[in-house]
Amino acid sequence: MKISVFHIGKTKSQNLLNLSDDYMKRIGHYCAVEEEVFKSDDQVLKSVDSTDYLVVLDEKGKNVSSEGLSELFLKHMNEATKKIVFFIGGADGVLPQIKKRANFILSLSKMTMMHEIALVVLMEQIYRAFTIIRNEPYHRG
Amino acid sequence: MKISVFHIGKTKSQNLLNLSDDYMKRIGHYCAVEEEVFKSDDQVLKSVDSTDYLVVLDEKGKNVSSEGLSELFLKHMNEATKKIVFFIGGADGVLPQIKKRANFILSLSKMTMMHEIALVVLMEQIYRAFTIIRNEPYHRG
Repeated sequence: MKISVFHIGKTKSQNLLNLSDDYMKRIGHYCAVEEEVFKSDDQVLKSVDSTDYLVVLDEKGKNVSSEGLSELFLKHMNEATKKIVFFIGGADGVLPQIKKRANFILSLSKMTMMHEIALVVLMEQIYRAFTIIRNEPYHRG
Repeated sequence: MKISVFHIGKTKSQNLLNLSDDYMKRIGHYCAVEEEVFKSDDQVLKSVDSTDYLVVLDEKGKNVSSEGLSELFLKHMNEATKKIVFFIGGADGVLPQIKKRANFILSLSKMTMMHEIALVVLMEQIYRAFTIIRNEPYHRG
């Protein structure tokens, strides 16, 4: 299973960029992972394969615990899903056709986060999910 | 109204430290704000005044939208509350007596975040709440 994180707009804050790069590296120890930056929502669906499991982030989506995310990963590993794609939209939200294609709409928080912060929160959750699967001491839920 | 953010343990990541310092400065344009770092939960309640409105962060608490947080601030401004204290516990969670003293238990996310990340998420939400109150263009909910 491979993980892709798609998002809109290059992160401008060097601090947030360093944090998401650091988590990318950490996730890479468990799983093939890539990040793709898009200029706008229009291009996103062209990069999503029909077999990809698309998780779109939206504050009105489903709230899941860290354990819940790890169970989702385990399920897809067992089902031999090739790729899970996470998509974080820009400040204007996500186009309806992307939400329609989504296999899962995930809410990190009921609060509206700046999308660069949402990216770091998501990266930490992906990393945390693997430490839960491996029963490593990082997570104390 | 003054805002205090209490948390356990100095942030070690320079990137996260820079981010929370940056939000502290931004919040300071709207409201007197201070940050206090504690070594352990034991010392926290000694620094909470009986008139303080204590908001404890816990993933099992109440989920509130960004607008909801701004309404909470407005309410306390109108009621002339002297201080709102936010408390983020360490990796081992929050002592029961602190939860008992809490006026409000707030969940940023159903997911367990590293507490230094929770600090940055909270800081951004406090900042965002003031931009909502002032009707400034930062927030597009």
